[in-house]
Amino acid sequence: MKILVLNGPNLNMLGSREKSIYGGFTYDELREAIERKCLEKGVVADLFQSNHEGDLVDRIQRIDYDAVVINAGALTHYSYSLRDALELFKGLKIEVHISNIFAREEFRSRSVISAVCKGTIAGLGLQGYLLAIEYAVFKSTLVFGSGGG
Amino acid sequence: MKILVLNGPNLNMLGSREKSIYGGFTYDELREAIERKCLEKGVVADLFQSNHEGDLVDRIQRIDYDAVVINAGALTHYSYSLRDALELFKGLKIEVHISNIFAREEFRSRSVISAVCKGTIAGLGLQGYLLAIEYAVFKSTLVFGSGGG
Amino acid sequence: MKILVLNGPNLNMLGSREKSIYGGFTYDELREAIERKCLEKGVVADLFQSNHEGDLVDRIQRIDYDAVVINAGALTHYSYSLRDALELFKGLKIEVHISNIFAREEFRSRSVISAVCKGTIAGLGLQGYLLAIEYAVFKSTLVFGSGGG
Amino acid sequence: MKILVLNGPNLNMLGSREKSIYGGFTYDELREAIERKCLEKGVVADLFQSNHEGDLVDRIQRIDYDAVVINAGALTHYSYSLRDALELFKGLKIEVHISNIFAREEFRSRSVISAVCKGTIAGLGLQGYLLAIEYAVFKSTLVFGSGGG
Amino acid sequence: MKILVLNGPNLNMLGSREKSIYGGFTYDELREAIERKCLEKGVVADLFQSNHEGDLVDRIQRIDYDAVVINAGALTHYSYSLRDALELFKGLKIEVHISNIFAREEFRSRSVISAVCKGTIAGLGLQGYLLAIEYAVFKSTLVFGSGGG
Amino acid sequence: MKILVLNGPNLNMLGSREKSIYGGFTYDELREAIERKCLEKGVVADLFQSNHEGDLVDRIQRIDYDAVVINAGALTHYSYSLRDALELFKGLKIEVHISNIFAREEFRSRSVISAVCKGTIAGLGLQGYLLAIEYAVFKSTLVFGSGGG
Amino acid sequence: MKILVLNGPNLNMLGSREKSIYGGFTYDELREAIERKCLEKGVVADLFQSNHEGDLVDRIQRIDYDAVVINAGALTHYSYSLRDALELFKGLKIEVHISNIFAREEFRSRSVISAVCKGTIAGLGLQGYLLAIEYAVFKSTLVFGSGGG
Amino acid sequence: MKILVLNGPNLNMLGSREKSIYGGFTYDELREAIERKCLEKGVVADLFQSNHEGDLVDRIQRIDYDAVVINAGALTHYSYSLRDALELFKGLKIEVHISNIFAREEFRSRSVISAVCKGTIAGLGLQGYLLAIEYAVFKSTLVFGSGGG
Amino acid sequence: MKILVLNGPNLNMLGSREKSIYGGFTYDELREAIERKCLEKGVVADLFQSNHEGDLVDRIQRIDYDAVVINAGALTHYSYSLRDALELFKGLKIEVHISNIFAREEFRSRSVISAVCKGTIAGLGLQGYLLAIEYAVFKSTLVFGSGGG
Amino acid sequence: MKILVLNGPNLNMLGSREKSIYGGFTYDELREAIERKCLEKGVVADLFQSNHEGDLVDRIQRIDYDAVVINAGALTHYSYSLRDALELFKGLKIEVHISNIFAREEFRSRSVISAVCKGTIAGLGLQGYLLAIEYAVFKSTLVFGSGGG
Amino acid sequence: MKILVLNGPNLNMLGSREKSIYGGFTYDELREAIERKCLEKGVVADLFQSNHEGDLVDRIQRIDYDAVVINAGALTHYSYSLRDALELFKGLKIEVHISNIFAREEFRSRSVISAVCKGTIAGLGLQGYLLAIEYAVFKSTLVFGSGGG
Amino acid sequence: MKILVLNGPNLNMLGSREKSIYGGFTYDELREAIERKCLEKGVVADLFQSNHEGDLVDRIQRIDYDAVVINAGALTHYSYSLRDALELFKGLKIEVHISNIFAREEFRSRSVISAVCKGTIAGLGLQGYLLAIEYAVFKSTLVFGSGGG
Repeated sequence: MKILVLNGPNLNMLGSREKSIYGGFTYDELREAIERKCLEKGVVADLFQSNHEGDLVDRIQRIDYDAVVINAGALTHYSYSLRDALELFKGLKIEVHISNIFAREEFRSRSVISAVCKGTIAGLGLQGYLLAIEYAVFKSTLVFGSGGG
Repeated sequence: MKILVLNGPNLNMLGSREKSIYGGFTYDELREAIERKCLEKGVVADLFQSNHEGDLVDRIQRIDYDAVVINAGALTHYSYSLRDALELFKGLKIEVHISNIFAREEFRSRSVISAVCKGTIAGLGLQGYLLAIEYAVFKSTLVFGSGGG
Repeated sequence: MKILVLNGPNLNMLGSREKSIYGGFTYDELREAIERKCLEKGVVADLFQSNHEGDLVDRIQRIDYDAVVINAGALTHYSYSLRDALELFKGLKIEVHISNIFAREEFRSRSVISAVCKGTIAGLGLQGYLLAIEYAVFKSTLVFGSGGG
Repeated sequence: MKILVLNGPNLNMLGSREKSIYGGFTYDELREAIERKCLEKGVVADLFQSNHEGDLVDRIQRIDYDAVVINAGALTHYSYSLRDALELFKGLKIEVHISNIFAREEFRSRSVISAVCKGTIAGLGLQGYLLAIEYAVFKSTLVFGSGGG
Repeated sequence: MKILVLNGPNLNMLGSREKSIYGGFTYDELREAIERKCLEKGVVADLFQSNHEGDLVDRIQRIDYDAVVINAGALTHYSYSLRDALELFKGLKIEVHISNIFAREEFRSRSVISAVCKGTIAGLGLQGYLLAIEYAVFKSTLVFGSGGG
Repeated sequence: MKILVLNGPNLNMLGSREKSIYGGFTYDELREAIERKCLEKGVVADLFQSNHEGDLVDRIQRIDYDAVVINAGALTHYSYSLRDALELFKGLKIEVHISNIFAREEFRSRSVISAVCKGTIAGLGLQGYLLAIEYAVFKSTLVFGSGGG
Repeated sequence: MKILVLNGPNLNMLGSREKSIYGGFTYDELREAIERKCLEKGVVADLFQSNHEGDLVDRIQRIDYDAVVINAGALTHYSYSLRDALELFKGLKIEVHISNIFAREEFRSRSVISAVCKGTIAGLGLQGYLLAIEYAVFKSTLVFGSGGG
Repeated sequence: MKILVLNGPNLNMLGSREKSIYGGFTYDELREAIERKCLEKGVVADLFQSNHEGDLVDRIQRIDYDAVVINAGALTHYSYSLRDALELFKGLKIEVHISNIFAREEFRSRSVISAVCKGTIAGLGLQGYLLAIEYAVFKSTLVFGSGGG
Repeated sequence: MKILVLNGPNLNMLGSREKSIYGGFTYDELREAIERKCLEKGVVADLFQSNHEGDLVDRIQRIDYDAVVINAGALTHYSYSLRDALELFKGLKIEVHISNIFAREEFRSRSVISAVCKGTIAGLGLQGYLLAIEYAVFKSTLVFGSGGG
Repeated sequence: MKILVLNGPNLNMLGSREKSIYGGFTYDELREAIERKCLEKGVVADLFQSNHEGDLVDRIQRIDYDAVVINAGALTHYSYSLRDALELFKGLKIEVHISNIFAREEFRSRSVISAVCKGTIAGLGLQGYLLAIEYAVFKSTLVFGSGGG
Repeated sequence: MKILVLNGPNLNMLGSREKSIYGGFTYDELREAIERKCLEKGVVADLFQSNHEGDLVDRIQRIDYDAVVINAGALTHYSYSLRDALELFKGLKIEVHISNIFAREEFRSRSVISAVCKGTIAGLGLQGYLLAIEYAVFKSTLVFGSGGG
Repeated sequence: MKILVLNGPNLNMLGSREKSIYGGFTYDELREAIERKCLEKGVVADLFQSNHEGDLVDRIQRIDYDAVVINAGALTHYSYSLRDALELFKGLKIEVHISNIFAREEFRSRSVISAVCKGTIAGLGLQGYLLAIEYAVFKSTLVFGSGGG
């Protein structure tokens, strides 16, 4: 199983941003935690971060993944291009947000990509990514393996 | 550690509701899956379901839990009373939705309780509850135990 | 055939409320008129009134009726829990309002349960309930008996 | 007693329209069912259908009816001229819709004529017209005859 | 004279809630202050708190009070059922809020019950209840006694 | 203790305005009632009425009061200048309305000054001013004297 | 000089409509008053009333008038077709309303034709038409004759 | 008969303002035209212009006029104080606007004083004032003299 | 193949309308250009223009066309009756606008008939009609003939 | 004549997207059809597709085209940068959409670039591009050659 | 060159207001800084502050300035009278705000005078005034002197 | 001191854009004027223009500047990614707009980046950039040097 973990604009700056909102970990620590989890679960992770909407769309279009875990950063709130790219991808899609976007500025409570994803995990920090991966692995074992509920 | 798992109106009817949206499991199967997970993690789960807003508020007010995992059902969209009750509870609060509330009717995309919870997991079916419990356990080990990243 | 006739908050007070809007009949007179009509049509009526949203949801969930005739009172305007309960019930559902809710305060013109009912009768007073029962009987004869158009 | 049964734009096309929404009956079958019901109740029915707003207004202005049963078709959503004409008519006015206008496109859930009618029956198909006539007859017996509750 | 003092959801938790907003008194202290004031004024107070909308509606329907002083808690913002119950009660009704609801979250600035009450006192803490009682007593002396300006 | 009692545009016309809304008292009667109450409570009242927004702002800026009781009249609904002036004044501020502004025209239900006041009393007629003064006196005794509550 | 005086839907019913809103005159009395005024001013009046939007548009398109005085009735609020027809007519256009449309139902306060007319006279009853004609005559003397200001 | 002709902010600058919108006449020419018309009609005119909302309110409160003709300038769009003052004045009130306020910036199409006036004349330039006076005179002859229709 | 080319209110006035918006051609020139194009393509065109909504609905209901090309004029923005008539017609429907409706007044940017048409061509003047016919012919050859792409 | 045919985000994925909405052709087939049409018409086509807003803006700025035919994909709904770039380009601009954007999700019905284009063709699939090119060629012959209408 | 520097309601209180928002300088210090800058630049400054909208309008109407630098205080958000006065003044107009009005309460982000000014400087404290003066001087040298870019 | 001067989409086209809005200077002239000013003030300027949102975000993230002066072009109105990048940068941030964005199309009056900047200068053309730099220099001398007023 192969999972694309996408991070959008400014997420490379993790650690320098307000700690009370985003926690104290850096992007490298996020990367390591994800890779460790994937190793543990026996899946391949492809991590990609970009501040460019077009780069994110390009990457999603490769379509050689079983699942996409995406934190689109601020693009979450207006990038219908990203939405269309995700809609085209027929595998599993999970939206992740480090902070609780529903408890911040009004504009952050609206996501234009939620409707084309399987589900959303918000506010659980770095753990949100790991839980999303766990879910993706669980889902794939349902299809390929024995499964459970 | 003790976790209150609250389910609001109509969630006792799981299994009889549209399968394409809510999956095919019943409320009893949900209960069993949660109890199994809690046993596995060594935490105590208190499951409670009611169609009465007041009963849910009463239960939250007992305040003898370390965490609350709540799927408020349709109360999600208008029960400011539930919101106030949750706000008063100072432990960890995680909102769960079985279906992707952002991909359904317009009125379902607004939650009046999100802003007072730590985070939200939506659209991941029965797994959403289990991941929420996993997160709660993880968080408590951070406080009481050794922690991680 | 068995019909559940539900009345929501404050409808037990009929008769004491503004006569120009709700007519001069009491809840007991409403009950008698409905029972008389049902007797006449050879169907069983189960009348239930409550000021508690949860009680109304509980009752709908019993699902041992062929049809539900519901006047949800002021819950009409915000109770998505009632809406979900009605949506789960797969029999015939008819919404009734004694007064013309479209000719009163702005907030009364929006019903959150209309969309999950077969139809709505508003403004025809006590007769609205009787016509709803007549329709339910007509519908069931279409299914079980000879029918007509 | 004399009742004007008005049908607005496109209702002459009944039967050719989506059966899942409007049922399978034609305008002629509607006409016959209404005439049969009126005969049975001993009242005179005047049926009129037009795709022209002005024709409908002209007809209402004749004011030689005891009651108007009106399905204004799509004019329901914008014809304030029809509203004014109905407001001028001081007899009984009942609005009928074949389909459940509250469960379709957003624009169909708003009626500009409801506020000047006695009441509304929506979603009960051809039966909606018949129930409206029954109500009109009931009302007139209240005034001219002995009445009931 | 007999006054019903109603407190809605979560007001039993007073004292445990944010002190900067709700002051430092508990529900028992509120009860005592009200009872002392009523004793002093020679009126009978009936205090009732519930987290259940239906219980509050039930209580108002008893209609054996001269006045109702109500702090509906978060129900203030959506309970049209409570509004209808209050509208049916023909005695004096005064709405009270401990905190200044106009200086908090946007949703708290709208009350659906204000329009059916005589008046509103907001932001004056525990004193708000006492001033409301004083006003009720003043009003009743106007009717039964000598009055003033 | 010194209290500024401000009355905005048209409140000098009290008595000539609709009695059903504003009661039958004149501005002079209001003045007398306030002065009597202040004398009784041992505080100094400075009453000021003006139809000029600027005069009201000028007066508030003098800042030699312990409290301001203000009925801003129609300026309530748009005078952000008054709001800023009140915000600058660091003493106690209480907003008073003679009528129930929440039960009248839509535009009257929004106050732009509520958010910068301690609290609001609306709909209690002339008594609203007297209760506001009582509260102000109570508050000051809390600070300077023995307190209670 | 030739003036077209247009009256839209239901204005032929003048006199039978609420007297408190529309005054007690009939359409024939309106016609006579206008003809008398025109005779007096030495201008030719062409009066036309229709309940049909299309007829009104047809008439405006004849374009052999110096001015149009129009009371579009309820079409005022939605007939963009009438607006376009008026916009095409390059002579003087004055909008008249018998009642004060700004003091009635919300929907009546918006006119879709005002923006393409020279001006509007509302609320002055039958006189509104006469003043409009007076203005039209005054304007034409400005162009053809000596004028004034 | 005595008429108060009020002009609000910036109307003293007439003539210096955009000619295409306001015409080429000055405030003095407006004054003269009004005085000439009043002389001709045998009524007394009191003209008053101010840039101060409070001055306009003060003047209306004098209440020794039979009628008020008011062009409130930009105060039209927000001065609820002016609205209240006009509402208190029980004589005839006519709103005048020199330009067609419905064909300019969006904010100009809403008047907060229209609802408390008898009627509105907009877009007819200086003539608007004269027609308003003519109407006032006509109205008074209806009351005091013989009248007509 | 038979195509109905419908033109709504005021389109008979083409040529007299603003040239900068609608171009300089007349309705007759439009008619000729369309007929020439149809002749060239070997299809039958039925041109119909009316200022009456009802006439347009009547015409669409004949349903003996393979395609409808419609410029509904200002009815575009509010005629839900036209929308219903088009929805009933199961052949190809193409909406045409001479001017760019998205670059004009706000109200022109919303079409209530777009959603029931196959597509829209706006802003391309007279050519818009010809391109629509070309498309209709292309589509029919796909069905009856060899096709392309 | 040289035409730039721009395709925005995700249009390179044509053929893999929902066939019911976008038809069954691929981006290469689109390219070929356009090139064939241009060859046939004797014009030069420059096709460019990108998922990057900035690339599209860069390309438009080259300004060495006579016309731009643009399908901006989802950027249509929010890219004011693209709008500004198109506004700067003074040649002919035509907006194309493969699907009927007015019959899909609400957010797709608003285009921020329509207002700066000559016109729009939506819903006519691959043919939309070809008709746009035909129009561009027609327009240029009007300028450079003999023309027609 | 002569510049009018206008300050609206409450700006005379500078220094006593929240330092975090308005900085620590007083109105007198502002006055001195502006006068020093004007002296330095060789222009005449006329400083005027008032809490009265009418006084500000009166002052602008004198029209003997080359430029107006205005901080309208809270009038910024609703004074269309001020807007009209500024629109009438044909010289240079620059709007200044001490604090960043876009980062505070929602109502502060809308200015009704911006659209009639040359430009706006917000959030740069006392310096905002000085930069505005600098710009005014620069502009005048462009007209009267040599200029630059 | 080092200042980053950012220019967003289409600002490289300055000079070719409408002169009445953007003035007649080119991007090169803007560059020179800024460099000259910086030289004069003894600060280092880093000028960067891009049509790519991602490039602008990348550049801001370098965080080796003391201040950022940014004209985000049309990204101003929707780029929450840019907003987040600016929010992360803890130095001085000033927003500049060449034209008065409040006097143009509605959508231009909303900036999503204003709230995270120190202040905004709009409508002052090329001078806006120079004044922003002057302010930045002034601010830095306050911190590092002697300061002033």
